[in-house]
Amino acid sequence: MMHVRRIASVSVLVALLLIAGAQSRESAQATAAADPLPSWNEGATKKSIIDFVKRVTTPGKDFVPVADRIATFDNDGTLWCEKPLPEGLFVLERAKKLIAAKPELKERQPFKALIEKDKDYFHEHGEAALVELVTESYGNITVEDFQKEARAFAAAFKHPKTEKPLKGITYQPQLELLKYLRDNDFTVWICSGGTIDFIRCISEDLYGVAPHNVIGTTLKTEVREMNGRSEIWRLPELDVFNDKAAKPPSIARHIGKRPILTCGNEGAGGDIAMLAYTQGSTYPSLQLIVNHDDKERETEYAEKDNKSLETAKAKGWTVISMKGDWKEVFAK
Amino acid sequence: MMHVRRIASVSVLVALLLIAGAQSRESAQATAAADPLPSWNEGATKKSIIDFVKRVTTPGKDFVPVADRIATFDNDGTLWCEKPLPEGLFVLERAKKLIAAKPELKERQPFKALIEKDKDYFHEHGEAALVELVTESYGNITVEDFQKEARAFAAAFKHPKTEKPLKGITYQPQLELLKYLRDNDFTVWICSGGTIDFIRCISEDLYGVAPHNVIGTTLKTEVREMNGRSEIWRLPELDVFNDKAAKPPSIARHIGKRPILTCGNEGAGGDIAMLAYTQGSTYPSLQLIVNHDDKERETEYAEKDNKSLETAKAKGWTVISMKGDWKEVFAK
Repeated sequence: MMHVRRIASVSVLVALLLIAGAQSRESAQATAAADPLPSWNEGATKKSIIDFVKRVTTPGKDFVPVADRIATFDNDGTLWCEKPLPEGLFVLERAKKLIAAKPELKERQPFKALIEKDKDYFHEHGEAALVELVTESYGNITVEDFQKEARAFAAAFKHPKTEKPLKGITYQPQLELLKYLRDNDFTVWICSGGTIDFIRCISEDLYGVAPHNVIGTTLKTEVREMNGRSEIWRLPELDVFNDKAAKPPSIARHIGKRPILTCGNEGAGGDIAMLAYTQGSTYPSLQLIVNHDDKERETEYAEKDNKSLETAKAKGWTVISMKGDWKEVFAK
Repeated sequence: MMHVRRIASVSVLVALLLIAGAQSRESAQATAAADPLPSWNEGATKKSIIDFVKRVTTPGKDFVPVADRIATFDNDGTLWCEKPLPEGLFVLERAKKLIAAKPELKERQPFKALIEKDKDYFHEHGEAALVELVTESYGNITVEDFQKEARAFAAAFKHPKTEKPLKGITYQPQLELLKYLRDNDFTVWICSGGTIDFIRCISEDLYGVAPHNVIGTTLKTEVREMNGRSEIWRLPELDVFNDKAAKPPSIARHIGKRPILTCGNEGAGGDIAMLAYTQGSTYPSLQLIVNHDDKERETEYAEKDNKSLETAKAKGWTVISMKGDWKEVFAK
């Protein structure tokens, strides 16, 4: 409305509207003619996505109102390559800075094991040791200062092998899918095992996802008055590890509605609960799961028990074969 | 874009745009001429609100981009009357249903005290007893079933004294303020001590606030497979009591940005931390606090230590006098 109010002359307004109208018509024709998912090979997967989107946006019994067109995407292994985990490299960077500032940490676990590259320690102590490393390295800092560091890390990021920046490890077909969904009035949320304050530093630039549409792992925080300013202080303590069965409750808390489309990936069983939750929608729904089966262009890995793909088969979820369904893998 | 694509003829499109243009012009003129806050008396408070909104929406050094125009509002005592707490009545209703289903609860605290109207018990056991009553009455149910009951309660609500429905206990000046902010491209969030799943059942109808823009008190939840469907199960256990110092961390988690405008109320010191947090914005910011000083039209109450109003004075927050600043109090 604001720009309309400032226009004094009716004739200027009409001229602008005519130009806008012509542009809308042109772009509408271009969009209708163009393939919305050009990096996806033709086949059952691509068809299932396009059929679903048409179904829920076409007036009729399967129509879903715009406010309920909610899609949730996992991030690691779903929107970008998780080998190695970019956020894992950031944790390492933070841990090393912490050790440099407090050399006595070299003698304390899990920092000692990190410095000595003692893989056995981490194997032996499992998730607990990793959580401790993350919370110690991520805590004791304000959210705003943490995000300054995360942004600097993201800006300087180079993939250890390919030297690609972060943009270059995102999956081109998925960027097209996000745009296609938004063009059809979906709201896209990220629901990741990665930490919320880290992902918020990259989600807008890479995926067009605003900070409030990011759900992730959280540390406990508290408000503190610091230098006369009210700050959110990150405690070195895990709040929610947003993986597996934790994802649906996090979605319920942040969104307050069930998604109708969810995309995750196989590899660690992290998205089974989120996919099943979406399938409980009273609307038609679509479950997508990326299969990392492309050794040549990405990496090839699978779960020992193959649970994600077995569940997909049993529940009728759509498996995205990176090798077969994607014409291109990485964004340029 | 969708509706544009479906229009085949250019002439129809142009005609529609001309009509839309004429309507926009008319409504723009009407809006410019009309007072955006008609239920607010002229004076320093109304002026401070309008000046602030103009300041952050006018290009120049104080301009705030649309994505950062975030406003958070408390609910009880800020958007609607909190004497008595509507959600308190719902808790009572749930507790009574629970006792009817399990009569043995009559012998168990805090239900025994509730049945016997034993105020001393609640005074003696304070917040802990109330939290227990709420979590026991609110837990052991799926989120979706809980919300069905909350919606039925809201639809049937009648204020114990005035017999008004919920709409009639909302504050008309605040509804105008929410609209005025949205007309200026603010996103309005509710950040309440009330519970998130309850408020989500009334926020859209009463305030135009979508479920994902509601932040509130939460119970712990977990995902459960029930009758072949994945459900969010509410545990009878408090997660976050979203009051006082808990509000800023909740805002940081849900929104991921500092608001630039916050409105709370005096009465129990619940909004001081949220107001102070907003004041830490690097943008210009506005803190509003409703003073319940209108015995005749609403109720009159104050904190024993007067902390909210004292803090407002010390920090330069804008106090809204219900008596002096509001022409009308309740919505019709």
